[in-house]
Amino acid sequence: MNFSANLFIISSPSGAGKSTLVNRLFRDLGAVHPMKFSVSHTTRGMRPGETDGVEYHFTDIPTFQKMIEGNEFLEWAKVFDNYYGTSRKTVEDSLRAGTDVFLDIDWQGARQIKKQFPTVRTVFILPPSIAVLKERLEKRGQDSAEVIRSRMEKARSEIIHYDEYDYVIVNDVLDEAYDQLRSVVIAEQSRLELQKVRYASLLADLT
Amino acid sequence: MNFSANLFIISSPSGAGKSTLVNRLFRDLGAVHPMKFSVSHTTRGMRPGETDGVEYHFTDIPTFQKMIEGNEFLEWAKVFDNYYGTSRKTVEDSLRAGTDVFLDIDWQGARQIKKQFPTVRTVFILPPSIAVLKERLEKRGQDSAEVIRSRMEKARSEIIHYDEYDYVIVNDVLDEAYDQLRSVVIAEQSRLELQKVRYASLLADLT
Repeated sequence: MNFSANLFIISSPSGAGKSTLVNRLFRDLGAVHPMKFSVSHTTRGMRPGETDGVEYHFTDIPTFQKMIEGNEFLEWAKVFDNYYGTSRKTVEDSLRAGTDVFLDIDWQGARQIKKQFPTVRTVFILPPSIAVLKERLEKRGQDSAEVIRSRMEKARSEIIHYDEYDYVIVNDVLDEAYDQLRSVVIAEQSRLELQKVRYASLLADLT
Repeated sequence: MNFSANLFIISSPSGAGKSTLVNRLFRDLGAVHPMKFSVSHTTRGMRPGETDGVEYHFTDIPTFQKMIEGNEFLEWAKVFDNYYGTSRKTVEDSLRAGTDVFLDIDWQGARQIKKQFPTVRTVFILPPSIAVLKERLEKRGQDSAEVIRSRMEKARSEIIHYDEYDYVIVNDVLDEAYDQLRSVVIAEQSRLELQKVRYASLLADLT
Protein backbone atom coordinates (compact mmCIF):
# COMPACT_ATOMS: atom_id res chain seq x y z
CA MET A 1 0.00 0.00 0.00
CA ASN A 2 2.62 2.56 -0.94
CA PHE A 3 0.59 5.23 -2.70
CA SER A 4 1.64 8.74 -3.58
CA ALA A 5 -1.92 10.07 -3.13
CA ASN A 6 -4.54 10.18 -0.37
CA LEU A 7 -8.05 8.95 0.20
CA PHE A 8 -10.21 11.64 1.82
CA ILE A 9 -13.64 11.50 3.39
CA ILE A 10 -15.49 14.77 3.73
CA SER A 11 -18.61 14.67 5.87
CA SER A 12 -20.97 17.27 7.26
CA PRO A 13 -24.58 17.79 8.19
CA SER A 14 -26.62 19.38 5.45
CA GLY A 15 -26.62 23.15 5.89
CA ALA A 16 -22.90 23.38 6.77
CA GLY A 17 -21.91 24.47 3.26
CA LYS A 18 -19.94 21.40 2.24
CA SER A 19 -20.99 21.43 -1.43
CA THR A 20 -19.80 25.01 -1.91
CA LEU A 21 -16.43 24.20 -0.34
CA VAL A 22 -15.89 20.94 -2.19
CA ASN A 23 -16.98 22.38 -5.55
CA ARG A 24 -14.47 25.18 -5.11
CA LEU A 25 -11.78 22.70 -4.15
CA PHE A 26 -12.31 20.71 -7.33
CA ARG A 27 -12.56 23.80 -9.51
CA ASP A 28 -9.54 25.67 -8.08
CA LEU A 29 -7.12 23.13 -6.63
CA GLY A 30 -8.30 20.41 -9.01
CA ALA A 31 -6.91 22.46 -11.90
CA VAL A 32 -3.34 21.86 -10.69
CA HIS A 33 -3.63 18.87 -8.37
CA PRO A 34 -4.92 15.46 -9.53
CA MET A 35 -8.11 14.65 -7.64
CA LYS A 36 -11.41 12.91 -8.26
CA PHE A 37 -14.55 11.70 -6.58
CA SER A 38 -14.76 7.96 -6.21
CA VAL A 39 -17.36 6.35 -8.50
CA SER A 40 -19.50 3.94 -6.48
CA HIS A 41 -20.85 0.59 -7.55
CA THR A 42 -24.63 0.18 -7.50
CA THR A 43 -27.22 -2.41 -8.40
CA ARG A 44 -29.92 0.13 -9.21
CA GLY A 45 -30.87 0.46 -12.87
CA MET A 46 -29.13 2.95 -15.14
CA ARG A 47 -31.26 6.05 -15.80
CA PRO A 48 -31.52 7.94 -19.09
CA GLY A 49 -28.44 10.11 -19.55
CA GLU A 50 -26.27 8.09 -17.16
CA THR A 51 -23.10 6.34 -18.34
CA ASP A 52 -21.59 3.25 -16.78
CA GLY A 53 -18.40 4.22 -14.98
CA VAL A 54 -19.35 7.90 -14.74
CA GLU A 55 -22.25 8.32 -12.29
CA TYR A 56 -21.84 4.75 -11.03
CA HIS A 57 -20.36 1.43 -11.91
CA PHE A 58 -23.62 -0.37 -12.70
CA THR A 59 -23.55 -3.95 -11.45
CA ASP A 60 -26.06 -6.79 -11.12
CA ILE A 61 -27.00 -8.14 -7.72
CA PRO A 62 -25.17 -11.49 -7.94
CA THR A 63 -21.95 -9.72 -8.95
CA PHE A 64 -22.36 -7.18 -6.13
CA GLN A 65 -22.98 -9.94 -3.60
CA LYS A 66 -19.95 -11.86 -4.81
CA MET A 67 -17.89 -8.67 -4.38
CA ILE A 68 -19.19 -8.34 -0.80
CA GLU A 69 -18.17 -11.92 -0.08
CA GLY A 70 -14.76 -11.29 -1.64
CA ASN A 71 -14.29 -8.26 0.66
CA GLU A 72 -13.93 -6.05 -2.40
CA PHE A 73 -15.73 -3.07 -0.85
CA LEU A 74 -14.24 -0.48 1.46
CA GLU A 75 -17.84 0.24 2.49
CA TRP A 76 -21.27 -0.75 1.22
CA ALA A 77 -24.90 -0.35 2.20
CA LYS A 78 -28.27 -1.62 1.08
CA VAL A 79 -30.80 1.16 0.63
CA PHE A 80 -34.28 -0.27 0.08
CA ASP A 81 -33.69 -2.88 -2.67
CA ASN A 82 -30.47 -1.44 -4.04
CA TYR A 83 -26.87 -1.96 -3.05
CA TYR A 84 -24.31 0.85 -3.11
CA GLY A 85 -20.62 0.44 -2.39
CA THR A 86 -17.09 1.81 -2.79
CA SER A 87 -14.78 -0.77 -4.30
CA ARG A 88 -11.26 -1.01 -3.02
CA LYS A 89 -9.92 -1.53 -6.53
CA THR A 90 -11.58 1.62 -7.90
CA VAL A 91 -10.02 3.67 -5.09
CA GLU A 92 -6.60 2.05 -5.23
CA ASP A 93 -6.30 2.33 -9.02
CA SER A 94 -6.66 6.11 -8.69
CA LEU A 95 -4.31 6.36 -5.71
CA ARG A 96 -1.73 4.30 -7.56
CA ALA A 97 -1.95 6.79 -10.44
CA GLY A 98 -1.18 9.62 -7.97
CA THR A 99 -4.75 10.97 -7.85
CA ASP A 100 -6.30 11.99 -4.53
CA VAL A 101 -9.68 10.33 -4.13
CA PHE A 102 -12.61 11.96 -2.33
CA LEU A 103 -15.60 10.23 -0.77
CA ASP A 104 -18.73 12.14 0.09
CA ILE A 105 -20.16 9.85 2.79
CA ASP A 106 -21.47 10.08 6.35
CA TRP A 107 -19.96 8.92 9.64
CA GLN A 108 -21.30 5.39 9.22
CA GLY A 109 -19.50 4.94 5.91
CA ALA A 110 -16.46 6.69 7.37
CA ARG A 111 -16.31 4.15 10.19
CA GLN A 112 -16.39 1.24 7.73
CA ILE A 113 -13.71 2.80 5.55
CA LYS A 114 -11.37 3.50 8.46
CA LYS A 115 -11.42 -0.19 9.34
CA GLN A 116 -10.62 -1.23 5.77
CA PHE A 117 -8.30 1.61 4.90
CA PRO A 118 -6.63 3.06 8.00
CA THR A 119 -4.66 5.75 6.17
CA VAL A 120 -7.87 7.50 5.03
CA ARG A 121 -7.94 11.18 6.04
CA THR A 122 -11.25 12.42 7.34
CA VAL A 123 -12.62 15.96 7.44
CA PHE A 124 -15.80 17.13 9.13
CA ILE A 125 -17.35 20.48 8.21
CA LEU A 126 -19.41 22.29 10.82
CA PRO A 127 -21.74 25.30 10.67
CA PRO A 128 -20.62 28.27 12.79
CA SER A 129 -23.68 28.19 15.07
CA ILE A 130 -27.06 26.58 15.66
CA ALA A 131 -28.70 29.80 14.47
CA VAL A 132 -26.83 29.78 11.14
CA LEU A 133 -27.54 26.08 10.65
CA LYS A 134 -31.25 26.70 11.22
CA GLU A 135 -31.23 29.68 8.89
CA ARG A 136 -29.54 27.64 6.14
CA LEU A 137 -31.96 24.74 6.55
CA GLU A 138 -34.94 27.12 6.46
CA LYS A 139 -33.70 28.83 3.32
CA ARG A 140 -34.22 25.67 1.33
CA GLY A 141 -37.92 26.41 0.91
CA GLN A 142 -41.14 27.29 2.64
CA ASP A 143 -41.26 24.34 5.00
CA SER A 144 -43.28 23.81 8.14
CA ALA A 145 -41.74 24.18 11.59
CA GLU A 146 -42.07 20.40 11.91
CA VAL A 147 -39.99 19.75 8.78
CA ILE A 148 -37.31 22.22 9.93
CA ARG A 149 -37.25 20.63 13.35
CA SER A 150 -36.78 17.19 11.81
CA ARG A 151 -33.92 18.50 9.62
CA MET A 152 -32.30 20.05 12.69
CA GLU A 153 -32.58 16.74 14.53
CA LYS A 154 -30.97 14.93 11.60
CA ALA A 155 -28.17 17.51 11.43
CA ARG A 156 -27.53 17.16 15.13
CA SER A 157 -27.42 13.36 14.84
CA GLU A 158 -24.62 13.79 12.27
CA ILE A 159 -22.78 16.54 14.17
CA ILE A 160 -22.37 14.48 17.35
CA HIS A 161 -19.91 12.31 15.39
CA TYR A 162 -17.53 15.18 14.59
CA ASP A 163 -14.99 13.79 17.04
CA GLU A 164 -14.42 10.67 14.94
CA TYR A 165 -12.70 12.82 12.29
CA ASP A 166 -9.07 13.88 11.85
CA TYR A 167 -9.86 17.47 10.89
CA VAL A 168 -12.72 19.75 11.85
CA ILE A 169 -13.45 22.88 9.83
CA VAL A 170 -15.93 25.47 11.02
CA ASN A 171 -17.49 27.10 7.98
CA ASP A 172 -18.00 30.61 9.30
CA VAL A 173 -16.02 32.80 6.87
CA LEU A 174 -16.14 30.90 3.58
CA ASP A 175 -12.67 31.96 2.36
CA GLU A 176 -11.08 30.85 5.62
CA ALA A 177 -12.89 27.52 5.66
CA TYR A 178 -11.83 26.98 2.07
CA ASP A 179 -8.22 27.83 2.88
CA GLN A 180 -8.31 25.24 5.66
CA LEU A 181 -9.81 22.52 3.46
CA ARG A 182 -7.33 23.23 0.68
CA SER A 183 -4.46 23.26 3.20
CA VAL A 184 -5.46 19.86 4.54
CA VAL A 185 -5.27 18.39 1.03
CA ILE A 186 -1.89 20.03 0.27
CA ALA A 187 -0.39 19.25 3.67
CA GLU A 188 -1.40 15.60 3.49
CA GLN A 189 0.48 15.43 0.20
CA SER A 190 3.63 16.51 2.04
CA ARG A 191 3.53 13.68 4.58
CA LEU A 192 6.66 11.58 4.86
CA GLU A 193 4.97 8.36 3.76
CA LEU A 194 3.76 9.84 0.46
CA GLN A 195 6.89 11.86 -0.24
CA LYS A 196 8.98 8.71 0.18
CA VAL A 197 7.08 7.21 -2.75
CA ARG A 198 6.98 10.34 -4.88
CA TYR A 199 10.63 11.28 -4.37
CA ALA A 200 12.10 7.80 -4.11
CA SER A 201 14.87 8.46 -6.60
CA LEU A 202 15.73 11.93 -5.23
CA LEU A 203 15.92 10.49 -1.73
CA ALA A 204 18.12 7.64 -2.87
CA ASP A 205 20.34 10.23 -4.51
CA LEU A 206 20.52 12.57 -1.49
CA THR A 207 21.15 9.98 1.23
CA MET B 1 -2.01 19.70 27.71
CA ASN B 2 -5.05 20.98 25.83
CA PHE B 3 -3.60 23.73 23.67
CA SER B 4 -5.23 25.49 20.75
CA ALA B 5 -1.88 25.99 18.99
CA ASN B 6 0.97 23.81 17.74
CA LEU B 7 4.66 23.40 18.35
CA PHE B 8 6.57 23.00 15.07
CA ILE B 9 10.14 21.98 14.37
CA ILE B 10 11.53 22.94 10.98
CA SER B 11 14.85 21.34 10.07
CA SER B 12 16.93 21.16 6.93
CA PRO B 13 20.51 20.96 5.77
CA SER B 14 21.99 24.35 4.96
CA GLY B 15 21.49 25.10 1.28
CA ALA B 16 17.91 23.79 1.16
CA GLY B 17 16.41 27.28 1.35
CA LYS B 18 14.82 27.02 4.77
CA SER B 19 15.46 30.62 5.81
CA THR B 20 13.73 32.02 2.73
CA LEU B 21 10.69 29.80 3.33
CA VAL B 22 10.43 30.46 7.05
CA ASN B 23 10.95 34.21 6.67
CA ARG B 24 8.12 34.32 4.15
CA LEU B 25 5.92 32.25 6.44
CA PHE B 26 6.40 34.71 9.29
CA ARG B 27 5.97 37.75 7.05
CA ASP B 28 2.87 36.54 5.16
CA LEU B 29 1.01 34.04 7.31
CA GLY B 30 2.31 35.63 10.52
CA ALA B 31 0.35 38.77 9.68
CA VAL B 32 -2.95 36.92 10.21
CA HIS B 33 -1.98 33.87 12.23
CA PRO B 34 -0.35 34.10 15.69
CA MET B 35 3.10 32.52 15.51
CA LYS B 36 6.54 33.06 17.03
CA PHE B 37 9.97 31.55 17.31
CA SER B 38 10.75 30.08 20.68
CA VAL B 39 13.28 32.11 22.67
CA SER B 40 15.96 29.78 24.06
CA HIS B 41 17.63 29.96 27.44
CA THR B 42 21.43 30.34 27.43
CA THR B 43 24.23 30.76 29.91
CA ARG B 44 26.44 32.69 27.49
CA GLY B 45 26.93 36.35 28.27
CA MET B 46 24.66 39.03 26.83
CA ARG B 47 26.26 40.91 23.94
CA PRO B 48 25.88 44.62 23.18
CA GLY B 49 22.50 45.27 21.59
CA GLU B 50 20.90 42.10 22.95
CA THR B 51 17.91 42.20 25.27
CA ASP B 52 17.00 39.56 27.83
CA GLY B 53 13.91 37.70 26.64
CA VAL B 54 14.37 38.76 23.01
CA GLU B 55 17.42 37.00 21.54
CA TYR B 56 17.67 34.66 24.55
CA HIS B 57 16.57 34.25 28.11
CA PHE B 58 19.96 34.89 29.73
CA THR B 59 20.51 32.62 32.69
CA ASP B 60 23.42 31.81 35.02
CA ILE B 61 24.91 28.33 35.09
CA PRO B 62 23.55 27.23 38.50
CA THR B 63 20.02 28.24 37.47
CA PHE B 64 20.36 26.46 34.15
CA GLN B 65 21.64 23.31 35.85
CA LYS B 66 18.79 23.43 38.35
CA MET B 67 16.37 23.69 35.41
CA ILE B 68 17.97 20.62 33.81
CA GLU B 69 17.54 18.69 37.05
CA GLY B 70 13.93 19.85 37.31
CA ASN B 71 13.28 18.54 33.77
CA GLU B 72 12.31 22.05 32.71
CA PHE B 73 13.83 21.78 29.23
CA LEU B 74 12.25 20.18 26.19
CA GLU B 75 15.78 19.97 24.84
CA TRP B 76 19.15 21.33 25.82
CA ALA B 77 22.77 21.07 24.75
CA LYS B 78 26.16 22.22 25.98
CA VAL B 79 28.21 23.89 23.24
CA PHE B 80 31.77 24.50 24.43
CA ASP B 81 31.26 26.17 27.82
CA ASN B 82 27.77 27.43 27.26
CA TYR B 83 24.39 25.80 27.78
CA TYR B 84 21.47 26.35 25.41
CA GLY B 85 17.97 25.01 25.93
CA THR B 86 14.27 25.30 25.12
CA SER B 87 12.21 25.58 28.27
CA ARG B 88 8.90 23.80 28.45
CA LYS B 89 7.30 26.77 30.21
CA THR B 90 8.34 29.24 27.52
CA VAL B 91 6.81 27.02 24.84
CA GLU B 92 3.67 26.15 26.75
CA ASP B 93 2.94 29.75 27.74
CA SER B 94 2.78 30.67 24.05
CA LEU B 95 0.75 27.61 23.08
CA ARG B 96 -1.70 28.34 25.87
CA ALA B 97 -2.12 31.85 24.44
CA GLY B 98 -3.02 30.28 21.07
CA THR B 99 0.30 31.10 19.40
CA ASP B 100 2.02 28.52 17.19
CA VAL B 101 5.64 28.12 18.29
CA PHE B 102 8.48 27.34 15.87
CA LEU B 103 11.81 25.78 16.70
CA ASP B 104 14.71 25.98 14.31
CA ILE B 105 16.72 22.96 15.45
CA ASP B 106 18.33 19.88 13.93
CA TRP B 107 17.35 16.22 14.11
CA GLN B 108 19.16 15.71 17.42
CA GLY B 109 17.11 18.42 19.12
CA ALA B 110 14.01 17.15 17.32
CA ARG B 111 14.51 13.69 18.81
CA GLN B 112 14.76 15.12 22.33
CA ILE B 113 11.66 17.27 21.84
CA LYS B 114 9.57 14.41 20.48
CA LYS B 115 10.22 12.45 23.66
CA GLN B 116 9.22 15.37 25.87
CA PHE B 117 6.43 16.75 23.71
CA PRO B 118 4.92 14.03 21.52
CA THR B 119 2.40 16.29 19.77
CA VAL B 120 5.18 18.37 18.17
CA ARG B 121 4.84 18.54 14.38
CA THR B 122 8.06 18.20 12.46
CA VAL B 123 8.92 19.40 8.96
CA PHE B 124 12.06 18.62 6.98
CA ILE B 125 13.01 20.74 3.99
CA LEU B 126 15.05 19.14 1.21
CA PRO B 127 16.91 20.55 -1.79
CA PRO B 128 15.61 19.30 -5.17
CA SER B 129 18.86 17.58 -6.14
CA ILE B 130 22.48 17.02 -5.17
CA ALA B 131 23.51 19.38 -7.97
CA VAL B 132 21.34 22.23 -6.70
CA LEU B 133 22.52 21.67 -3.14
CA LYS B 134 26.13 21.85 -4.26
CA GLU B 135 25.44 24.96 -6.33
CA ARG B 136 23.79 26.66 -3.33
CA LEU B 137 26.63 25.73 -0.99
CA GLU B 138 29.21 26.99 -3.51
CA LYS B 139 27.42 30.32 -3.96
CA ARG B 140 28.23 31.27 -0.41
CA GLY B 141 31.71 32.40 -1.33
CA GLN B 142 34.95 31.54 -3.06
CA ASP B 143 35.69 28.42 -1.09
CA SER B 144 38.06 25.59 -1.78
CA ALA B 145 36.85 22.25 -3.11
CA GLU B 146 37.75 20.85 0.30
CA VAL B 147 35.48 23.28 2.14
CA ILE B 148 32.62 22.59 -0.28
CA ARG B 149 33.13 18.84 0.13
CA SER B 150 33.00 19.16 3.90
CA ARG B 151 29.77 21.21 3.68
CA MET B 152 28.25 18.58 1.40
CA GLU B 153 29.19 15.89 3.88
CA LYS B 154 27.58 17.82 6.70
CA ALA B 155 24.43 18.38 4.62
CA ARG B 156 24.24 14.68 3.81
CA SER B 157 24.64 13.76 7.48
CA GLU B 158 21.55 15.90 8.19
CA ILE B 159 19.54 14.71 5.20
CA ILE B 160 19.76 11.03 6.14
CA HIS B 161 17.46 11.84 9.07
CA TYR B 162 14.60 13.13 6.86
CA ASP B 163 12.54 10.04 7.64
CA GLU B 164 12.22 10.95 11.32
CA TYR B 165 9.95 13.88 10.33
CA ASP B 166 6.18 14.10 9.84
CA TYR B 167 6.34 16.22 6.70
CA VAL B 168 8.94 16.43 3.96
CA ILE B 169 9.00 19.40 1.60
CA VAL B 170 11.20 19.43 -1.48
CA ASN B 171 12.19 23.04 -2.19
CA ASP B 172 12.32 22.95 -5.99
CA VAL B 173 9.81 25.62 -7.06
CA LEU B 174 9.85 28.15 -4.21
CA ASP B 175 6.15 29.10 -4.47
CA GLU B 176 5.09 25.47 -4.31
CA ALA B 177 7.35 24.66 -1.38
CA TYR B 178 6.02 27.73 0.40
CA ASP B 179 2.42 26.71 -0.30
CA GLN B 180 3.17 23.31 1.24
CA LEU B 181 4.80 24.76 4.36
CA ARG B 182 1.96 27.25 4.84
CA SER B 183 -0.59 24.46 4.29
CA VAL B 184 1.02 22.30 6.96
CA VAL B 185 0.67 25.12 9.49
CA ILE B 186 -2.95 25.86 8.52
CA ALA B 187 -3.97 22.20 8.31
CA GLU B 188 -2.48 21.40 11.70
CA GLN B 189 -4.66 24.16 13.14
CA SER B 190 -7.72 22.31 11.84
CA ARG B 191 -6.96 19.07 13.67
CA LEU B 192 -9.72 17.71 15.86
CA GLU B 193 -7.70 18.00 19.09
CA LEU B 194 -7.06 21.72 18.63
CA GLN B 195 -10.50 22.56 17.29
CA LYS B 196 -12.06 20.90 20.34
CA VAL B 197 -10.28 23.47 22.49
CA ARG B 198 -10.84 26.46 20.23
CA TYR B 199 -14.52 25.75 19.56
CA ALA B 200 -15.45 24.22 22.90
CA SER B 201 -18.52 26.38 23.37
CA LEU B 202 -19.72 26.04 19.75
CA LEU B 203 -19.33 22.26 19.98
CA ALA B 204 -21.22 22.14 23.27
CA ASP B 205 -23.94 24.17 21.60
CA LEU B 206 -24.14 22.04 18.43
CA THR B 207 -24.09 18.60 20.04
